[in-house]
Amino acid sequence: MANLVFGAGIWAFGRIVDRYATDGYGPERSTRAMLELAAQVDGLDHLDINHPFDEPDLSAASVAALLDGLGLRARAVTPHLYTREFTRGAFTNPDPAVRRAARDRVHAAVGVAAELGAGYVKFWPGQDGFDMPGQADYARLWELTVDAIRELATAHPETQFAIEYKPKEPRVRITLGNAATTLLAIQDAGVDNVGIVLDFGHSLMAGETPAEALQLVHRQGRLVSAELNDNWRGWDDDLPVASVHLFETLEFLLALRRVGWDQPVLLDQFPFREDPVAALSHSIETIRRLDAACERIDVDALRDAQERQDAIAAQKLLWAAVG
Amino acid sequence: MANLVFGAGIWAFGRIVDRYATDGYGPERSTRAMLELAAQVDGLDHLDINHPFDEPDLSAASVAALLDGLGLRARAVTPHLYTREFTRGAFTNPDPAVRRAARDRVHAAVGVAAELGAGYVKFWPGQDGFDMPGQADYARLWELTVDAIRELATAHPETQFAIEYKPKEPRVRITLGNAATTLLAIQDAGVDNVGIVLDFGHSLMAGETPAEALQLVHRQGRLVSAELNDNWRGWDDDLPVASVHLFETLEFLLALRRVGWDQPVLLDQFPFREDPVAALSHSIETIRRLDAACERIDVDALRDAQERQDAIAAQKLLWAAVG
Amino acid sequence: MANLVFGAGIWAFGRIVDRYATDGYGPERSTRAMLELAAQVDGLDHLDINHPFDEPDLSAASVAALLDGLGLRARAVTPHLYTREFTRGAFTNPDPAVRRAARDRVHAAVGVAAELGAGYVKFWPGQDGFDMPGQADYARLWELTVDAIRELATAHPETQFAIEYKPKEPRVRITLGNAATTLLAIQDAGVDNVGIVLDFGHSLMAGETPAEALQLVHRQGRLVSAELNDNWRGWDDDLPVASVHLFETLEFLLALRRVGWDQPVLLDQFPFREDPVAALSHSIETIRRLDAACERIDVDALRDAQERQDAIAAQKLLWAAVG
Amino acid sequence: MANLVFGAGIWAFGRIVDRYATDGYGPERSTRAMLELAAQVDGLDHLDINHPFDEPDLSAASVAALLDGLGLRARAVTPHLYTREFTRGAFTNPDPAVRRAARDRVHAAVGVAAELGAGYVKFWPGQDGFDMPGQADYARLWELTVDAIRELATAHPETQFAIEYKPKEPRVRITLGNAATTLLAIQDAGVDNVGIVLDFGHSLMAGETPAEALQLVHRQGRLVSAELNDNWRGWDDDLPVASVHLFETLEFLLALRRVGWDQPVLLDQFPFREDPVAALSHSIETIRRLDAACERIDVDALRDAQERQDAIAAQKLLWAAVG
Repeated sequence: MANLVFGAGIWAFGRIVDRYATDGYGPERSTRAMLELAAQVDGLDHLDINHPFDEPDLSAASVAALLDGLGLRARAVTPHLYTREFTRGAFTNPDPAVRRAARDRVHAAVGVAAELGAGYVKFWPGQDGFDMPGQADYARLWELTVDAIRELATAHPETQFAIEYKPKEPRVRITLGNAATTLLAIQDAGVDNVGIVLDFGHSLMAGETPAEALQLVHRQGRLVSAELNDNWRGWDDDLPVASVHLFETLEFLLALRRVGWDQPVLLDQFPFREDPVAALSHSIETIRRLDAACERIDVDALRDAQERQDAIAAQKLLWAAVG
Repeated sequence: MANLVFGAGIWAFGRIVDRYATDGYGPERSTRAMLELAAQVDGLDHLDINHPFDEPDLSAASVAALLDGLGLRARAVTPHLYTREFTRGAFTNPDPAVRRAARDRVHAAVGVAAELGAGYVKFWPGQDGFDMPGQADYARLWELTVDAIRELATAHPETQFAIEYKPKEPRVRITLGNAATTLLAIQDAGVDNVGIVLDFGHSLMAGETPAEALQLVHRQGRLVSAELNDNWRGWDDDLPVASVHLFETLEFLLALRRVGWDQPVLLDQFPFREDPVAALSHSIETIRRLDAACERIDVDALRDAQERQDAIAAQKLLWAAVG
Repeated sequence: MANLVFGAGIWAFGRIVDRYATDGYGPERSTRAMLELAAQVDGLDHLDINHPFDEPDLSAASVAALLDGLGLRARAVTPHLYTREFTRGAFTNPDPAVRRAARDRVHAAVGVAAELGAGYVKFWPGQDGFDMPGQADYARLWELTVDAIRELATAHPETQFAIEYKPKEPRVRITLGNAATTLLAIQDAGVDNVGIVLDFGHSLMAGETPAEALQLVHRQGRLVSAELNDNWRGWDDDLPVASVHLFETLEFLLALRRVGWDQPVLLDQFPFREDPVAALSHSIETIRRLDAACERIDVDALRDAQERQDAIAAQKLLWAAVG
Repeated sequence: MANLVFGAGIWAFGRIVDRYATDGYGPERSTRAMLELAAQVDGLDHLDINHPFDEPDLSAASVAALLDGLGLRARAVTPHLYTREFTRGAFTNPDPAVRRAARDRVHAAVGVAAELGAGYVKFWPGQDGFDMPGQADYARLWELTVDAIRELATAHPETQFAIEYKPKEPRVRITLGNAATTLLAIQDAGVDNVGIVLDFGHSLMAGETPAEALQLVHRQGRLVSAELNDNWRGWDDDLPVASVHLFETLEFLLALRRVGWDQPVLLDQFPFREDPVAALSHSIETIRRLDAACERIDVDALRDAQERQDAIAAQKLLWAAVG
């Protein structure tokens, strides 16, 4: 791409825990320490930042100053809508008070995003769904989801929102689980300022072909952000870019070029056992390498092979560019 | 349900082949022989019938007479859009002549459906998609798909059409692969007389929860037919109803009741190694058993447990009704 | 079964965290509090207990006294071999000092098991494996795994050990990922006092049919323990028993009867969003219900249907017993 | 590899059918025509040949002459044990007469293999298994499987046999479904002249990492053949080599080098919609390209990175070799 700019979720630089290593993978780090690590990644200059911040008394202004001092920028603000209070749902929680608390988190995030100059506020409704058959009134979950989207988008008409869909984790089954379902929810909400974050790994998990999902979202005019990483297809492993699916990543980059993407490409990685600076630097190096491969692809020949459905010819063109 | 009526795809009664047992599972049967077997299944009186018929000179009138004589009715007509001529796509075939041939098959099926008094013409675009990364221009596949839907629906404004989505097989990756994507394609086509056949097994394959997919399709006003069967989740095994997923089937039947379903429930089974009459009779017996269980469920208590997200209480209500 | 006795992993009663709700699902609880909750579950009297205990200065003697006072018994002791220190492997960690630390944890667990009168020490090598293609020398991982099994089993010839296999989580890919691979590793170790914990959910994740895996492990004389729970097949959701897969659970119980199982049946659940006492009580109720169904099955008729491969007849026998 | 030699299953050159396109993908071809096509693939000189031949009166001597005339050789003979007669199992069929018929097919194949000078006779027990929960007596299926292996291997002590495992298709669930289970069955049979065909795609389907499975089979001294192709992980799509999983294929080739592989590498492809000569030629070109990449990898550095579990360093070494 003419202007390849990179961002990352700040969580890559913090202490990760899971249900087994409850004492964590790597050391605990302050917001400042995480940002300092981020600044060490060659090519990385945008961040998706969670709010509330880890330190309760840290102000948005302080974070803005930290970013500025390190040459970083906020690409997005993602309110924590999946922590303890929201484990039975944020927008769809059975308790109206919790649903209000979720909205309050979004209102606060909108303010922080404005202070940080972030491009969008991300909804990641990872606890909104259900766990086992028979448990859920799906129509009710849908209504609560759509109502929340509508209400929040309407309350902040100047703010761009974006939903990151995912089929499962942490909730066993998540309501907004794939690209098309999320597009329908946004339609139902009837709002213009809500789009989609297309996360490559979530798309694989959802059984989609990521480049195909991207064109669908773009066609509907809802592509707000694109995140890269990789996994073994059944779970959100958040591995380095193209560590498993090289051609699907290449194809995704081709699709971004085709829609004229000029915004940052974000990394959503969880380097459980790796040095985060090394892991993210490697992903950026990989994307640059694949972007150079895109440059070498004879796009007209590829389009022609695709028009004829000549799969072998198409594969040969990709191999020639990569190898 | 007040009025539980059953149908089946006629293919359950014919000779099945696959890429290994190319000489077939069971004997070859004429259309007449298949219909006679269907008539032996207790409770079965509707059929989804493929066209062209196996015998080239069999007329629709003859089939209508056969059906009538056996006390059977046509629920749907499904044109063969996935046979040899269409292996690289019907609506999205790279060859315009083949795309026209696919439309001609649909035009013919519309005529046959009228003669048989069938409720809908089914599109099952199982060859429309791609095989490997890099092969497809997804935007182009989408346009060709939407164009075909629009053109055919517009040409036959009095005919009800219904699309049966499926993520793969026979094509390695199918364009209309899940419920929400198919709803978006119908929207794009801008037609009123096209809806969806919700096949339980295809929904499992697509990573959906079938009862959740059903409410989504219903909410959009596009539910035309419902098909039952079962599988091991990764592939379209077309097994007897609830042989693997009992509670998800029960929940699906509850969802049908909730939307006021009063049309036949269809069986889409491939009894590779079983007697088809026994296999389908067993499925109907299972559905009746589960329908009786639905009758026993305290729906208000279930709704209340769902509203509270009390999963254990919901499960207890289902178990009490089944056991 | 003649003598249906139940146990559970103690973790069901503690605070669960994951990588998103890092502040936990439910309140933090002391060992005493967890045991008191366990004692409230009707029918539960055995526990699989992790070591080191949460409280560093809690002695095995104190835990033994607590158990005794509550009418509970230790079924197993499971050393924490997957916490922070071991995130790059316990038995296969690249650092020899960490491999020694893992052995030391096992030595300690053996002592605790003796004090608690536990039936076995469980190896759950959830961090032993790898993350992405190219990373691992599989032969080396295998040797380190087999060496550790051999060394530990040889060091404690009076102790029964049991390995719980699982294909992934927390490690992205786990070396001992299915039943047969684990049997081969035990063979390679050449020891008699190591067997297998067959966890129903892990078996589903591994693409196995749990009852089939059980007969394989039993045939090799290596069945030490059996754990029940359920999931949606792709991930270890640790849901209530038979909440998704009713017939596969029934078949598993039939297989346990057939091998003459007279040991406790354990529950491995993570009730993230449920009351643990309610969630585990419900599972025990379910198992009792299914055990009563087993009692009603005409086993000779079932065996006869199986011998003829009459799948429909076999299904009818199961349905008749359940409904 | 020092001596990279290629083979393929002859089925790639014939007419493929499936349960939808029952009239076939591509034209019907005689054995002669298939062999002539095979001879056109640059680099291909070994074949895995099915028996009985398509033409009932074709003799093994005629096929030997055809092969010789075209500069081809038989690598393996694979008896049809999965056609109509065997749809409820070959070795495990409930009917003893069918089990005898299966053995007769193997006896005949042994004779043909001798006449053709083939390296091994392949068992591909794709119909041996079951379809739905409750249907099978797993212990009985195991015994029948092991008995057949033992009896056939003992009857032909000079013949090398090899089993190709696969988790499903055509049977819904196949008894010999993964590498380790198959190794245990061979052990139980107690024979020396039976090994394993490691098919890359079947290994992916089984949830294995193919290079890891290969080392396991090699360690047990049972690696007889290796087949390459690719798929989307959930099904046996039999796509061109590395069209989806580039690094896993590269790693598989590295593993073959490490075990000193000097036998042909076979292609197991089903080019449903592609020209078979083009599709197989492309795969050979890909393998050669990846073999050249293997040559460029600093194996000592890779081993060192693996020993340290430095996943990023290992990935960088692979990327440097490929790009």
